[in-house]
Amino acid sequence: MDKIIVNPYEVEGDIDYKKLVKEFGLEEITPETLKRIEKHTGKLHFMLTRRIFLAGRDLKWLFDEYEKGNKFFLYTGCGPSGPIHLGHLMAWYFTKWLQDAFDVELYFQFTDDEKYLYKDLSYEEIQKWLHENMLDVIAVGFDPKKTHFIINTKHAGLLYPEAIKVAKKITFSTIKSSFGFTDSNNIGSIFYTSMQTVPSFLPSILKKKKIPCLIPHAVDQDPHFRLTRDILPKLGHYKPASIQCSFLPPLTGRNGKMSSTESVKGILASDNPNEVKKKINKYAFSGGKDTVEEHRKHGGDTEVDVPFQYLRYMFEEDDKKLKEIEDKYKSGKMMTGELKAYTIQRINEFLEVHQKRRKDADKKLNSFMLKY
Amino acid sequence: MDKIIVNPYEVEGDIDYKKLVKEFGLEEITPETLKRIEKHTGKLHFMLTRRIFLAGRDLKWLFDEYEKGNKFFLYTGCGPSGPIHLGHLMAWYFTKWLQDAFDVELYFQFTDDEKYLYKDLSYEEIQKWLHENMLDVIAVGFDPKKTHFIINTKHAGLLYPEAIKVAKKITFSTIKSSFGFTDSNNIGSIFYTSMQTVPSFLPSILKKKKIPCLIPHAVDQDPHFRLTRDILPKLGHYKPASIQCSFLPPLTGRNGKMSSTESVKGILASDNPNEVKKKINKYAFSGGKDTVEEHRKHGGDTEVDVPFQYLRYMFEEDDKKLKEIEDKYKSGKMMTGELKAYTIQRINEFLEVHQKRRKDADKKLNSFMLKY
Repeated sequence: MDKIIVNPYEVEGDIDYKKLVKEFGLEEITPETLKRIEKHTGKLHFMLTRRIFLAGRDLKWLFDEYEKGNKFFLYTGCGPSGPIHLGHLMAWYFTKWLQDAFDVELYFQFTDDEKYLYKDLSYEEIQKWLHENMLDVIAVGFDPKKTHFIINTKHAGLLYPEAIKVAKKITFSTIKSSFGFTDSNNIGSIFYTSMQTVPSFLPSILKKKKIPCLIPHAVDQDPHFRLTRDILPKLGHYKPASIQCSFLPPLTGRNGKMSSTESVKGILASDNPNEVKKKINKYAFSGGKDTVEEHRKHGGDTEVDVPFQYLRYMFEEDDKKLKEIEDKYKSGKMMTGELKAYTIQRINEFLEVHQKRRKDADKKLNSFMLKY
Repeated sequence: MDKIIVNPYEVEGDIDYKKLVKEFGLEEITPETLKRIEKHTGKLHFMLTRRIFLAGRDLKWLFDEYEKGNKFFLYTGCGPSGPIHLGHLMAWYFTKWLQDAFDVELYFQFTDDEKYLYKDLSYEEIQKWLHENMLDVIAVGFDPKKTHFIINTKHAGLLYPEAIKVAKKITFSTIKSSFGFTDSNNIGSIFYTSMQTVPSFLPSILKKKKIPCLIPHAVDQDPHFRLTRDILPKLGHYKPASIQCSFLPPLTGRNGKMSSTESVKGILASDNPNEVKKKINKYAFSGGKDTVEEHRKHGGDTEVDVPFQYLRYMFEEDDKKLKEIEDKYKSGKMMTGELKAYTIQRINEFLEVHQKRRKDADKKLNSFMLKY
């Protein structure tokens, strides 16, 4: 395996998730956990059965509490520094499923401070992306009555007094080893992880009782929450549980993760049907063979085929239909062009609905803000 | 000279202020500057003529702006982690004089986050001291119409979004060399200086025009504001000017600064007349000779005599009277007992008025809070 780097600030390499789960000390989601989820929700989301969400922390404890009547809340977030791509949407649509299926509150954090501190973007540019990104989150369809936006700069009056309680327990040595930082890092970026910790216990403070927290997130955020889990018991809070997903591959293939700054790598939530078509046809890495003859004879490789993976990760909910496609492609009955055309159609159907909801999002913005 | 350490987190040694001014790159307050202050205020405060406030930064620029009609505001503060002692009061009563003499706004910052992050005290203990200390600041007699309290945790919604703009421009390397920090420092303490920077430009943001800032403070705070002065022009703000004082000596003599945690070192704002009497008589380092005969013959040393220094720093405003005492003590006409008795009387007169005002302070608290 090539060298892989997975932390909130760098994702490189062809990620071996089995190995990563072991290295990070994550727990794979067990069949027992899946059964319990199914018992409570009626039906398992395909991102669970397909192991897109593949690991977690303390899920057994979380559902023990749930079954005792101690309902959890969800916490996830978005760092606003550019347009939203399909990789973001994947985790958020799954989060919406969790919200609906368990009928729980969601705290959604926008880490505008983080992006300002880490990126070469002005404060105003970040605020512009913050606004744009919030519209996409609303477009996912979260329930405004049960969804609370936390914007780090706007809610700092609420977050900072709690963040310093976390910060007092973390030395720079720890930050260095968790995130690979050096003395050249700016002091805001060094402090930042404290701000990301707060929503995992903030509802318990606001409601004056201990409430379990479940964080759906991509594996690259685990270093933040590993720190969180170390610190929170020392402050009298529960450790947050998590459910973690692998990365939706970039168009270019399985290395790294989708990005909104490199257009050859990502499909954006705002892309129109022609852009999607062009990107898939032009850039999407194919597992098909070089010639029609060879393909007919040997079939394609769905493991590395990006359009097929997009169907598997997000756009083909129907397991039977997916299996059909897989079989046809592997056996050489389905050509790359046909697979791409179908994927384009499914992505565009999805984005049409998303973009339509996004048009009305601005006027809902205020109802999503966490009031305190 | 012994090794001296002067930074916000450590003050040790017998401080040679001449040397410190040079090392820190401060400007001594020139006779021209004193003349300009006298021109505008009618009369110079004795802490200026006696060089208790001995140095500063950019005072010429500040009064140039003032004379052009660009009035400055004052910014000073208090770290709440214990009771208030005479050393705090000294700088605050001078600040009150500045406020009245120049008729300017004062922003008073309570750095409860700093004290929480640096001291082995709980959040609740710090909040208790915050409340106590605010009452002492009010007791100084500041004009509530022109005085605005900023509490770092309570006003974080206002401070944090500006603090990260500062933090983005400061690396941990810089913090290490400014404050002598190491990798074992907690990440809140590393970030903290950004919060202390904000009030030096916050009024300019709130009032949407650039307003010069004058910070009266003790020399140990200079490392914070040196950083501030480096960063602010990069953010389009004025560098703050400062006027800096030497330390009121602890009871034990000239080494270090007064402290509220070691009772042998400091007189507290809350001490009753008997406590003051006992502390001065029992602990105050004397410049008198060992025997009456020797003292009558050779006289006392006012330079090292703590009671005399207290009169000079704070409690004997009348220059003529002070000179009389100095002459009598140096010539052996005045004995240590007499000097101590007079000092006790003056301190108690001062504290009686302060403590009386403090009784009414709680109900004024709200009128001092910065509204935004």
